[in-house]
Amino acid sequence: MTKAIFYHAGCAVCVSAEKDILNLIPENQVEVVHLGTDKTKLKNAENAGVKSVPALVLSNGNVLHINFGASIEDLK
Amino acid sequence: MTKAIFYHAGCAVCVSAEKDILNLIPENQVEVVHLGTDKTKLKNAENAGVKSVPALVLSNGNVLHINFGASIEDLK
Repeated sequence: MTKAIFYHAGCAVCVSAEKDILNLIPENQVEVVHLGTDKTKLKNAENAGVKSVPALVLSNGNVLHINFGASIEDLK
Repeated sequence: MTKAIFYHAGCAVCVSAEKDILNLIPENQVEVVHLGTDKTKLKNAENAGVKSVPALVLSNGNVLHINFGASIEDLK
């Protein structure tokens, strides 16, 4: 199975959601990507349909936007 | 550990998110509440800080609003 990808940007909302999500999902099933420090991944996130962070992109392609930390546009 | 509670209301966004969440989280760690059919739980959800569904209320009290299906106000 492809891993889910958790996109975040280091904001308070993101960090809190990250902790919660990683508590719930087995660690080997999720990859964490920090879009604030790794801007090369922004395009991947956008292509996957991520509009804001934190967001979880699932292996089936669905995007779960979790709460609202920052817009993808603001990270560019 | 107290279970997380997944609140939803049967909308398309909710059903899709529910499937995804239940794929990710071990079944014995999450309780699913349908606020459309069980309106007595609306007060619990509101007290927990749920503003819209689907939402996941964690055992630590944090609320993860996942995408947006319907406002709690609209379910009353």
